[in-house]
Amino acid sequence: MEKLNIEELNKYFDKEVTISGFVDNIRNLQWVQFVILRDATGKVQVTIEKSEEANKEMVSIIDTLPLESTVKITGKVVESPKVKLNGMEIIPTKIEVTSTSGEELPFNFKDLSNVNLDTRLDYRFIDLRNDKNNFMFKVQSTLIKYMREYLYNNDFTEIHTPKFIAAASESGAEVFEVKYFDRKAYLAQSPQFYKQMAMASGMGRIFEVAPCFRAENSNTSRHATEFTSFDVEFSYINSFEDVMNLEAEMLTYALGKLKEEYGEKIKEVFGEEVVVPTLPFPTMRLADVYKELEERYGYKVDDSEKTDMTTEAEKLSYKLAKDKFNHEFMFIIDFPAEKRAFYHMRNEEGILQGYDLIWRGVEITSGAQREHRYEEVCKNANEKGLGEDVKFYLEFFKYGCPPHGGFAIGVDRLTMLLLSIPSVKETQFLFRGPNRLNP
Amino acid sequence: MEKLNIEELNKYFDKEVTISGFVDNIRNLQWVQFVILRDATGKVQVTIEKSEEANKEMVSIIDTLPLESTVKITGKVVESPKVKLNGMEIIPTKIEVTSTSGEELPFNFKDLSNVNLDTRLDYRFIDLRNDKNNFMFKVQSTLIKYMREYLYNNDFTEIHTPKFIAAASESGAEVFEVKYFDRKAYLAQSPQFYKQMAMASGMGRIFEVAPCFRAENSNTSRHATEFTSFDVEFSYINSFEDVMNLEAEMLTYALGKLKEEYGEKIKEVFGEEVVVPTLPFPTMRLADVYKELEERYGYKVDDSEKTDMTTEAEKLSYKLAKDKFNHEFMFIIDFPAEKRAFYHMRNEEGILQGYDLIWRGVEITSGAQREHRYEEVCKNANEKGLGEDVKFYLEFFKYGCPPHGGFAIGVDRLTMLLLSIPSVKETQFLFRGPNRLNP
Repeated sequence: MEKLNIEELNKYFDKEVTISGFVDNIRNLQWVQFVILRDATGKVQVTIEKSEEANKEMVSIIDTLPLESTVKITGKVVESPKVKLNGMEIIPTKIEVTSTSGEELPFNFKDLSNVNLDTRLDYRFIDLRNDKNNFMFKVQSTLIKYMREYLYNNDFTEIHTPKFIAAASESGAEVFEVKYFDRKAYLAQSPQFYKQMAMASGMGRIFEVAPCFRAENSNTSRHATEFTSFDVEFSYINSFEDVMNLEAEMLTYALGKLKEEYGEKIKEVFGEEVVVPTLPFPTMRLADVYKELEERYGYKVDDSEKTDMTTEAEKLSYKLAKDKFNHEFMFIIDFPAEKRAFYHMRNEEGILQGYDLIWRGVEITSGAQREHRYEEVCKNANEKGLGEDVKFYLEFFKYGCPPHGGFAIGVDRLTMLLLSIPSVKETQFLFRGPNRLNP
Repeated sequence: MEKLNIEELNKYFDKEVTISGFVDNIRNLQWVQFVILRDATGKVQVTIEKSEEANKEMVSIIDTLPLESTVKITGKVVESPKVKLNGMEIIPTKIEVTSTSGEELPFNFKDLSNVNLDTRLDYRFIDLRNDKNNFMFKVQSTLIKYMREYLYNNDFTEIHTPKFIAAASESGAEVFEVKYFDRKAYLAQSPQFYKQMAMASGMGRIFEVAPCFRAENSNTSRHATEFTSFDVEFSYINSFEDVMNLEAEMLTYALGKLKEEYGEKIKEVFGEEVVVPTLPFPTMRLADVYKELEERYGYKVDDSEKTDMTTEAEKLSYKLAKDKFNHEFMFIIDFPAEKRAFYHMRNEEGILQGYDLIWRGVEITSGAQREHRYEEVCKNANEKGLGEDVKFYLEFFKYGCPPHGGFAIGVDRLTMLLLSIPSVKETQFLFRGPNRLNP
């Protein structure tokens, strides 16, 4: 494909090129017009001398062209140290307008500091023209690329599990109901049951990157009714520590590769350092976290809340991870199993054989060894009163199933933490919440 | 991660290993037990001499172990040319049963030729234990990996568009309705509108691999209510031919890489040759296809049907592509635009600026340049009476939008054609149709 990116123009000095993009800015001076052209990779100045007879048509095009129109420009790339923008300019011979911006923009997307988030989301297609927002998705895509690459290199198969399910139950959270011909269906809250089905099928090691749906009527910076989940599950583990190790290795690999490719640009655009973690990630027992949070930072909380991490404890645990281990990540283990889903494995003392992973003060993952023994998983489901609802799932374990475990990472949340963006509303391509289905 | 794959065992001759898998078969003879162990990568024989005193416990374990239980075995890998299976065996010192298959299997998954497809799908977790089915998903995952790789190499960004939409309209096909708190939402039939939003946002080149939902009450080998779509969209094209070229290059790249990695195994397991196409793919005008199908093969059809490809014409066009061009793929162009969605670009004569791609007699793609000019796309939407329903979409084009185009490929259908599998019911991990939501 012959489309030329603006970032590659420095390979074409003194050559004629054809280049396309949005008209980012125009300075129409007495003797000259400066047009700034923008594509997804950068910006370049196009300089039109008004006195040149041959430029007449171009000059009159630019005279009336609204900003944000799109054009296709043919011209020569010239090295011009005096031009601040990349030290180059294009001297055009032809300008073709490919679309005309018809109205004044609803807001100035180049400075979003005073624009209400709801307005931005209403006009997300304008909001994303902001350099930072546009680049954010390049970063997200690249991080996911390398997470996948790690898994491919380790024998994982990508699968695509169904989002329509017949019964409404998996955990306590609410599910969406769908009118499915003459009956009802529901939308999967996670691929959990089907990831595990793949284990019972002998697929060994699988992952999926796909939407999950949660009918939670909550409105926090971390929640959405629909989000992209990066799900991993694999067989023949010895304990949930194998799951922790694999996740830590995957993240370390992907962050390392991301830093190589975009570390500098991320620093420039977001002011954020991509920190490549060291292995192994530090691990603490839940009870010890609360103990140290109190001892070190005076954080006190009632014992009844110590069965899980409070939001505040999550936040403080970032400080703890830094102070105690000089690390950005921390695994937390030894949760009481009764608060967790029935499919997680527990030991004889009722301790969850799983973990949470906290990054920069936010839980990004729950992972665990799963209960793969038919009698045990039936017992656990029945204890939660779910036996009938998940009957189809319990069947998976009747005919032999290897020990296995896995984890899930929210892609939007990961992006939010990586780039220090306040909310997943901004890191989702198009946020969906209880009050937002548009555009 | 230290899990050893059975296919790697030939690197461990005379070494002690620990290996896990399903008990695929047991031959319990007078003096010896032969256990065949299976994981996702292969099978290996484990040989237990009954006379050895140290083997007593293992012998009694195997004596009563149901097939399809899972075990973890420690032992020495020994080269044994007399063993048909890979010329090796494991002499175990320890066998640990990690799960016990509790019941007789509902069918023999090693020979599916006489098993009803519905029964297979009811017990998909057993059906997938079949070597062929298990390998099918490795092939699918690998093909998609290389399609993505081509796009990454060509500057594409992967995005994740919402599946919840506020209005029910995109094309004629039916959409699913969701109970969304106190209102209704719908499930996206495709990411079409949002792929194009990314173009209006200046993202340049994007793709998405995600589920699509279609409430069609039809029951063919090619349709499902939910399927995985591989969607591509990119800006700054000169015509729909740029879209055709990119798709052809992507498929050629991915099939070439797939052949390198799995060509031989695909031939062995499925009896199918992976044919790497040559570039460019042949292209024919719709009218010429019908003309040649009649001239060459006597295929006659009423003129009223010649506005699109009939299923029979699709089938025959495989023969035509082979006979005329010695090629497996064929682009068909010059469809009348009125039968196509309003967002496709058309020329002054009402000819669609797009194409279908036929592979082995089945349409795998529709692609097109899109109408990016605000006035034009409004006019086209209004002509179809969709103006109000797609108002949010029309907004995308108000503030400048570069010329762009794209295409979509059904992943399940692609797998079906690649491996000559009769139906997408078998190439989806878990098929979903009007009458099937289980398991």
